[in-house]
Amino acid sequence: MSITSPKGFRAAGVTAGLKASGKPDVALVVNDGPSDIAACVYTSNRCKANPVLWSEQVTADGRAKAVVLNSGGANCYTGPEGFQTTHASAELVAERLGLGAIDVVVCSTGLIGEQLERDRLTAGIEAAAGELSAEGGGAAAEAIMTTDTHSKESLRSGDGWSIGGMAKGAGMLAPALATMLVVITTDAELDSAAADRALRAATRVTFDRLDSDGCMSTNDTVLLMCSGASGVAADEAAFTEKLTEVCHDLAQQLLSDAEGADHDIAIEVVGAASEDDAVEVGRSIARSNLFKAAIFGKDPNWGRILASVGTTSAEFEPSALDVAMNGVWICRGGEPGDSRDLVDLDARAVSVTVDLKAGTESATIWTNDLTHAYVHENSAYST
Amino acid sequence: MSITSPKGFRAAGVTAGLKASGKPDVALVVNDGPSDIAACVYTSNRCKANPVLWSEQVTADGRAKAVVLNSGGANCYTGPEGFQTTHASAELVAERLGLGAIDVVVCSTGLIGEQLERDRLTAGIEAAAGELSAEGGGAAAEAIMTTDTHSKESLRSGDGWSIGGMAKGAGMLAPALATMLVVITTDAELDSAAADRALRAATRVTFDRLDSDGCMSTNDTVLLMCSGASGVAADEAAFTEKLTEVCHDLAQQLLSDAEGADHDIAIEVVGAASEDDAVEVGRSIARSNLFKAAIFGKDPNWGRILASVGTTSAEFEPSALDVAMNGVWICRGGEPGDSRDLVDLDARAVSVTVDLKAGTESATIWTNDLTHAYVHENSAYST
Repeated sequence: MSITSPKGFRAAGVTAGLKASGKPDVALVVNDGPSDIAACVYTSNRCKANPVLWSEQVTADGRAKAVVLNSGGANCYTGPEGFQTTHASAELVAERLGLGAIDVVVCSTGLIGEQLERDRLTAGIEAAAGELSAEGGGAAAEAIMTTDTHSKESLRSGDGWSIGGMAKGAGMLAPALATMLVVITTDAELDSAAADRALRAATRVTFDRLDSDGCMSTNDTVLLMCSGASGVAADEAAFTEKLTEVCHDLAQQLLSDAEGADHDIAIEVVGAASEDDAVEVGRSIARSNLFKAAIFGKDPNWGRILASVGTTSAEFEPSALDVAMNGVWICRGGEPGDSRDLVDLDARAVSVTVDLKAGTESATIWTNDLTHAYVHENSAYST
Repeated sequence: MSITSPKGFRAAGVTAGLKASGKPDVALVVNDGPSDIAACVYTSNRCKANPVLWSEQVTADGRAKAVVLNSGGANCYTGPEGFQTTHASAELVAERLGLGAIDVVVCSTGLIGEQLERDRLTAGIEAAAGELSAEGGGAAAEAIMTTDTHSKESLRSGDGWSIGGMAKGAGMLAPALATMLVVITTDAELDSAAADRALRAATRVTFDRLDSDGCMSTNDTVLLMCSGASGVAADEAAFTEKLTEVCHDLAQQLLSDAEGADHDIAIEVVGAASEDDAVEVGRSIARSNLFKAAIFGKDPNWGRILASVGTTSAEFEPSALDVAMNGVWICRGGEPGDSRDLVDLDARAVSVTVDLKAGTESATIWTNDLTHAYVHENSAYST
């Protein structure tokens, strides 16, 4: 169950010494084809890291043959020297594998504002190129970890083809400064437009709705590479469904491993006039520190939920709002409903349901609670 | 130096038993005239508390003769019964003071989603009405405290008139669920339009730019009452200047007493193409948990600042951005600048300056760091 499970891919993960911990920190994934179709979505942050600036050029034509990833440094806000490091990485991968540099995606994660040690990175890429194998997916997934406590992988099978994925991070595609890097492989045959549509459809309802701490990373990248090695042309709808499952699975693994979190919170907004309204309301709740701290304290403080709803432009009447936590409707019609004593917040999984009573649309946003450990990890991260 | 320093006002603060702590919890302020000009700004949250819904009607005509305030309960999300409690409070004040209820502003602060104990509130109002005095400002300022560690008061004098103020809260006008209540009194002669313009101008650059935790309260109220008792017509510009000073002073007192904060952070955005751009960028940084946790950890992590800037729609080029902390330019042109070792974050006051290099406009947003104590206070608040 890894990115080398689909046919046509080799991978490796090695230790280059970029991380002080001495753990693996360089991963390489190669698509041996016959197809080199790829699709990629990147952070929407306007201050993008050098590897993102490079990779956007690589994937602009809907093709990529390899991706090199490093932890131990984000290569972000490192200026022209940092961009040269990224470019040199792609050049080296291309040289060792007989490709063009413009077919090599680069991803980096770790501290921002510091140069990567180019010599170590280079040696790591050399080593990874020498260790590429069809069993290397697991090692690659380990090499991209930063504050992750375990590697994240997923696999789904379709009719004659399969999709494998790996991810790192404690955050999400739009938000989360703890960079999210995701590589997904498939041996299905797809054309470039279909791959792009499928990836955007899948990420829109999975990684895009994961909002761990409302912060938007400079390096987030989700790359899909299609080898076509199964020889089976995938039905686009079926492929999109399985791809969404892989993305959802990886997103939930990211959520449950978020830095310092005690609770995984699913915020479902129903009865919305539009899906956009539901997403806006869900995000506003997910970004309320007061709500998130209350969940940490196992306090079913629904007033903080309504206060967040009130900051949005969504269609609703304040006196019509219903709120449930873990299935108990503690607020009905904007007033106290069932007793909050009925809500048990001991388990890690928490569900919040908000009924806007304004329509039939819905959306779910996932977030975590705000804990002492979150503050600790993020106050000491760079020191 | 209190709200009873300007001529024409009496006030009182008493213990009604709404707070479990047994501390004072009902305040009453009366404007004895001759003028009853008033102006008021309220939370922009769409889920408003009952006292806000009531008071908006009171001040709609630019006049008010008294304000009754209680801590120990926000009377928010309490439905028609809660609204009746607010209305009954105004009626009782009116009856005891020979006014119309529609001239009585009501403010409440404390837990939301629970009914106020109307009998206790009523008895408290009776007691406060009996204790009104021209020396009662300090007692009123104490009675509106919730998690505040001390009362907040301010006083400025103009040419023959003065302005007094009191505030409670740990937050801000737009944001902060820890309700901000502010009452400002003056004996200057002003017409209704001038009072409204002055209050909006003053709050726009003070309370509105205080963003402690990005959460927007349901009860925030800033009330200005003008007695005209000095007999001196105030020059509007001079009055606005002094009123802004009072608001700034109170806002800084709120900032320095914010729940669980270790640092007061002034985020100054300069070189902006517009003031709106500067405010948007400042707010985005003030709402970054990663940045705020870093300041708690005394880590001058400027990468998290740039990452926040990158989420805005402000005009700037990423490669042009400069960032200083406490006067040290640790980021120049989007790259590492002077050594971060030069930044000493031991003191409570922290300044962050971001130069967008896109124009000549600027704005300052004030916030606090994200600490273990913040999480603790807000996870245990209602339990």
